[in-house]
Amino acid sequence: MPGSQTPTRRYSYLGPAGTFTEAALKQVPEAVGQEWCPVANLGEALSDVVSGSSDAAVIAIENSIDGGVTVAQDALATIPGLRIVGEYLVPVRFVLVARPGTRMENINVVSGHPVAYGQCRAWLDDQIPRHRHLPATSNVQAAADLFDSEKGIDAAIAPPGIEEHYDVEVLAEGIAENPDAMTRFVLVSRTVPVGDPTGADKTSLIVELPEDRAGSLLELLEQFATRGVNLTLLASRPIGDRMGRYRFVIDAEGHIKDERVADALLGVKRFSPHVVFLGSYPRADRIAATTHAVYDNDTFRDARDWLRGVIEGTPDGSD
Amino acid sequence: MPGSQTPTRRYSYLGPAGTFTEAALKQVPEAVGQEWCPVANLGEALSDVVSGSSDAAVIAIENSIDGGVTVAQDALATIPGLRIVGEYLVPVRFVLVARPGTRMENINVVSGHPVAYGQCRAWLDDQIPRHRHLPATSNVQAAADLFDSEKGIDAAIAPPGIEEHYDVEVLAEGIAENPDAMTRFVLVSRTVPVGDPTGADKTSLIVELPEDRAGSLLELLEQFATRGVNLTLLASRPIGDRMGRYRFVIDAEGHIKDERVADALLGVKRFSPHVVFLGSYPRADRIAATTHAVYDNDTFRDARDWLRGVIEGTPDGSD
Amino acid sequence: MPGSQTPTRRYSYLGPAGTFTEAALKQVPEAVGQEWCPVANLGEALSDVVSGSSDAAVIAIENSIDGGVTVAQDALATIPGLRIVGEYLVPVRFVLVARPGTRMENINVVSGHPVAYGQCRAWLDDQIPRHRHLPATSNVQAAADLFDSEKGIDAAIAPPGIEEHYDVEVLAEGIAENPDAMTRFVLVSRTVPVGDPTGADKTSLIVELPEDRAGSLLELLEQFATRGVNLTLLASRPIGDRMGRYRFVIDAEGHIKDERVADALLGVKRFSPHVVFLGSYPRADRIAATTHAVYDNDTFRDARDWLRGVIEGTPDGSD
Amino acid sequence: MPGSQTPTRRYSYLGPAGTFTEAALKQVPEAVGQEWCPVANLGEALSDVVSGSSDAAVIAIENSIDGGVTVAQDALATIPGLRIVGEYLVPVRFVLVARPGTRMENINVVSGHPVAYGQCRAWLDDQIPRHRHLPATSNVQAAADLFDSEKGIDAAIAPPGIEEHYDVEVLAEGIAENPDAMTRFVLVSRTVPVGDPTGADKTSLIVELPEDRAGSLLELLEQFATRGVNLTLLASRPIGDRMGRYRFVIDAEGHIKDERVADALLGVKRFSPHVVFLGSYPRADRIAATTHAVYDNDTFRDARDWLRGVIEGTPDGSD
Repeated sequence: MPGSQTPTRRYSYLGPAGTFTEAALKQVPEAVGQEWCPVANLGEALSDVVSGSSDAAVIAIENSIDGGVTVAQDALATIPGLRIVGEYLVPVRFVLVARPGTRMENINVVSGHPVAYGQCRAWLDDQIPRHRHLPATSNVQAAADLFDSEKGIDAAIAPPGIEEHYDVEVLAEGIAENPDAMTRFVLVSRTVPVGDPTGADKTSLIVELPEDRAGSLLELLEQFATRGVNLTLLASRPIGDRMGRYRFVIDAEGHIKDERVADALLGVKRFSPHVVFLGSYPRADRIAATTHAVYDNDTFRDARDWLRGVIEGTPDGSD
Repeated sequence: MPGSQTPTRRYSYLGPAGTFTEAALKQVPEAVGQEWCPVANLGEALSDVVSGSSDAAVIAIENSIDGGVTVAQDALATIPGLRIVGEYLVPVRFVLVARPGTRMENINVVSGHPVAYGQCRAWLDDQIPRHRHLPATSNVQAAADLFDSEKGIDAAIAPPGIEEHYDVEVLAEGIAENPDAMTRFVLVSRTVPVGDPTGADKTSLIVELPEDRAGSLLELLEQFATRGVNLTLLASRPIGDRMGRYRFVIDAEGHIKDERVADALLGVKRFSPHVVFLGSYPRADRIAATTHAVYDNDTFRDARDWLRGVIEGTPDGSD
Repeated sequence: MPGSQTPTRRYSYLGPAGTFTEAALKQVPEAVGQEWCPVANLGEALSDVVSGSSDAAVIAIENSIDGGVTVAQDALATIPGLRIVGEYLVPVRFVLVARPGTRMENINVVSGHPVAYGQCRAWLDDQIPRHRHLPATSNVQAAADLFDSEKGIDAAIAPPGIEEHYDVEVLAEGIAENPDAMTRFVLVSRTVPVGDPTGADKTSLIVELPEDRAGSLLELLEQFATRGVNLTLLASRPIGDRMGRYRFVIDAEGHIKDERVADALLGVKRFSPHVVFLGSYPRADRIAATTHAVYDNDTFRDARDWLRGVIEGTPDGSD
Repeated sequence: MPGSQTPTRRYSYLGPAGTFTEAALKQVPEAVGQEWCPVANLGEALSDVVSGSSDAAVIAIENSIDGGVTVAQDALATIPGLRIVGEYLVPVRFVLVARPGTRMENINVVSGHPVAYGQCRAWLDDQIPRHRHLPATSNVQAAADLFDSEKGIDAAIAPPGIEEHYDVEVLAEGIAENPDAMTRFVLVSRTVPVGDPTGADKTSLIVELPEDRAGSLLELLEQFATRGVNLTLLASRPIGDRMGRYRFVIDAEGHIKDERVADALLGVKRFSPHVVFLGSYPRADRIAATTHAVYDNDTFRDARDWLRGVIEGTPDGSD
C-alpha cells in the first residue's frame, strides 16, 4: 500500500540467471521478492556490499571437490567491514552441451568455469582425452559462448536445465566426478551485530600465525581442542608477502555466543597477531555441534562462579 | 594499653623449639610477638586451624631432597576450609650428635626423622654402613631420645645448634647429601579472601583427572601451557580408592588474580571432576613469573574488548 | 659421435615458449641440450611422464601470492607412479600489454591465466575498476589472443619480454601485487630410488586423516613436532567424496634419509589410512634445515644402540 | 643329593617373617624352596643384589593409599646395575594390637611403620584422637616392641595373623582406610637380558627432563601418547640438586620388545638427558595392554616396509 512499503532489499550474486549462485540465493528466505542483481565477478559482488549499493551478496566459498574458493577466502581476509550471515548448499551437477548436431568425436575445445572444469576433468579426460579447456567466467556464459562462433568452442560444461535458456543439445549428463558434490555458498552483509545461536551454528574466522613454524599451528589448533571446539574447515592461504607465509581460514562448530567458542576465540585473539572474525551463522546442514558436556555453557558459568567463590574465600568454595 | 590491645594471634607448628618448622615460623613477619604453639604432628597443626584454636599453622610441604611431604599434600587435598597464605624456605643442614664420649665405630642405631634420614642416608651408608635407622617424630626429639637409654639409640641426626639445648657432642657436621638443600614451608589459615598479587606469586591447587589415562594428564598440562603458565611443581598422589588412581598436586607460577592464571584455573575446573584451590601467595624466593607478553593482563583485557566488539558489530571490530 | 650418443631426454612443460614454466625448466641443469616439449596443460604434462613419452615434467606447485596450485596438488595425490626430484623458484613479474595505441580508459576485458590475474587483481581493481576478466590457459596465450579480435580482449597480463614475441605495447610494468612474488616449480619423474641428502632438502607428502575431526590433525602435526621436523607447507585439499573431508599436502624440512624425517614418516604412515610419498629433493632456496641437536642422525643412532643394550642387559646399558 | 644339586638361590626381603614383603616373596614361583634372607631395610636388600650376595630382592614400590615408595624409587634411580624382573600385589590389611588387657581409652602411643600409619591414620584420628605415633622399622617390629616396656608403646599397627607370633590381643581389625588397599612389590635382580613379552606386561623407567619447565613434561608425555602407550604411573621425585628439579618415575603398559614401547623409549632417550630403564616384566594383575590397532607390532613392521619401499622406489610403494 502507498506509504507503508518496506524499502526493497538488494542482493548481488554471480550471474547470469541460472548459475549455481542464483540457486543458492533462492534458498535465502529474506531475499524472496527482493531485488536480485547479477554481477560479473566476486569483487563486484563484495564491492556492492561495502559501498552499500547492495544489502548483501551470495558468494561461493567452498566446494566438496575443489576445496575452498581461494579468491573468496582472500577477499574476506582482506576487505574490512564484511560479515557472513548465512550459509547454503547447492548440489553440483553438470551436463555437457553443444550446438545441436555436434558429435562427441568432433569436440576439441570445451569451455567451462575453472571450478566446474576441475569437477568434470576426470570424465573429460576419459571421454575426450585430447580436449582443450577454455576457461569461462561462468558456466552459463560457457553455454552462451557456444553461439559466439569465433570463440571456437565445441562444447560447454553447464548446469542442468541450461537447455531451457539456450538452444543446446545435452550430450551427457552427470559428468561431474562425484554425484554428491556440493558447493557451499555464504550470504555476506556489512558488519552487523551477531545474531543468536540456533544450536546448529558455524563460526568462520581467519587467523594469522605469530611465527613461521609448525609449532604455532599446533598451538592454534590447541586453542580449539582444549575447549572442545571441532573444526569443519582448516585451509591455508598465502599471506602473499613471501613464500611459505600462510594465514588460516577456519570454520568452527558453534556460535560466538556459545561459551566454549567465545573462550576459544579469546585464546586465538591473544595468540595471533591478526584475527578476522567473519561471522557466526546457522549451518546449512542443520547439524548440531557435537560437544562434550564439559564444554557446555553451564560448565563455563559454573567454573566462573567457582573462581569468584575461591577468590572471595566463600566457605566450601574450594570444590 | 588496657582496653586497646589487639587480641593475640596463635600459630601452631611442629615442635619442640629448635625444629626447622620453628625456623620457618620465625620468617613470618605477622607472627612476631604472637603466641607460638608447638604440636606433635601435622594433623594436630591443621586441626588447630580448622577448629579455630589457632589462627594459622606452619607446615613443611616440599623438600629439595625428599620431594613433596606427602602427608601434608594429602591433608591439604582432603581437609576442607584451609588456605595457603605464605611460603618460606629454610636451609636444611644436619649434624650427627651422640652422648659425650661416643665413638663412631660404636654407633649401631641412628635416630632421626625419616625425611632427615633420607637426606643423610648417603653419608651414613658410607661412614656407618651397617647402621640401623630408628625413626623419630622430629629431629629435636631424636636428640632428646639419646638420653632415654632404653631406646637403645647411639646417635641422632639433629639440626645445627642442638648442642645448646642438649648435652650432646657433635660427631660430624654437614652430613646432609646436598649442602644447598632447602625445605619449603607454607603458612596455612582458614579459608579467607585471596590477597593481591605481588608480581612474584605462586598458586597451589590439587586436581583430580577425569579418566585414568595418560591422555587426560596431557590435557591438564595443556590448560596451563596454552595460557603460558609455568608449573614449579607437579606431584602425583594416590586418591586411595584403588591402585593407579592419582590426583595431582600443582604449584603454578602467578596469582589467581593474574588473568592467565584465572583463565587456566577456569579451564582446569571445567575439565576436572574435582579441583581444590589451595591458595595464591607471595613466593618465598621472590622470583617474578616468567611469561610472554601474549599472556599478560592487558592482552587478556584487549581480547575481551575485541570479542565484545565483534559480537556487537562495531565497525572495524574485526581486527 | 655415431654409436656413442646418450639418448636424448625429453622434458614436458606448460608452453608455449616464454612461460614461467619454461623459465623454471631453464634452471634444470640436466635438461640443458635435451628435448623440451611444450604441452597444453598439467594433465598432459603428467601423462607424458606416466606413459614414458617424456622423462620428466616441470609443473608449478605453489605460488607466494596464490598458494598451492590445487590442480597440481590433486594430480600428485591421485596419479600413482610419480615422484618429485627437483624444485625451482621463478620470480613472478607481470606487465599489462595491449595492441599498440590502446589507452587505459578504453580497456574493458583483461585476459590472463587465473593465477596471474589473482596476483594482479589489486592493481587492476584500482586502475581499471570495472574491468572484466577473461581467463586464458597461459599468460603467453593471453597476449596472443589480443590479435584474435573476436575474443574481445582489450589487454593481457603477460610476462616481461612478451613484446619480443608479439607486437604488443606495454601499458604498465610491475603490476603484480608483490614485487617479491615467486612461483615454485617441481620436476616430476616416474618413481625412482630417492637420491642422497644434500643437507638442504625438502620432503613432500600427502596424508589423509584417519577421522574427520580437529584432533586427528593435531595428532598428525605432533608426528613431525615430536621429531623436530619443521613444515614449510601445510595445505588442505578436499578428498572429494563429501564436504568437509580433506587430505593434507605437506612439505617438511629434511630428507627421508635423515633419521628424524624417516621416523616422522613412519609415525605418519602408522597413523594415516593413506600416505603418498612424493619425494625428497634439494631445496631451491638451499636453506639448510633448522633442527635441534636432539634430532640429528647421531642422536637417533645412539638411542638405537642404547635400546639394544638395555634389551641385551649390557652392563651400564641403563644410561 | 651330592653332585646333582642346583645351587640354592638367595632372596633378600624386608624382614622379619610375617611382613607384607614376605607375603610378596611367597608369590614368586622360582623362590620356592630357596634361601630367604630377611634384611633390616631397603638399602641392605639392594646392596645384597648389587654385591651378589643375593640373587634378587623383593621390595615395596607403590601403595594404593600412600603412593610411590619414594626411597625405593630413588634407590632404583641412582643405583646402577639393577633390573625389575617381576611384580606382585599384596592386599594391605591391618589390625590394632596391644598387650593383653589393654583398653582403648588407655592408649596414648601407637607404633607402626610410617606407611602403615598413613593408611590407618583416619581410623586412629577418629578413635584415638590424641594418640602419638612412634615410627617403627616394620609393623612386625612394632608388635614386638610392645614387650620392650621402656619404649612406652601402648598399641601397634600390625598385619593380620600377628597374634600367632606374639602374645598380643587384637583390639580392632580392618583399621586401614580402604579395605581394597594393595601394596605393589617388585622383584629386583642384577641387570640381565630382558625376557619375552607375555601380552600383559609393564615397563618401568626413570626419566630426567631436559629443561625445568612445564613444556618439557608435555613433550615427554607426548612421546608415549603419539605411540599409543598408556602410563599406569607417573610420579615425580626431586633430583636433589635444587628445589623444583624433578625426575619422573614412569610405568608404561607394554614391553620393551613391543614395537610401540620400543619406539616410545627411543623417543624418550633422544629427548632426555638421562633415562634409566628399570625393566619390562609381567604385570601382577595380568591385564593386557589396551592399545589401538594402529599401534600393534604389524603396523610398525608394515610402516618400516613401506619406508624401505619408497626409498628404493619400488613401483606402487607410495601407498
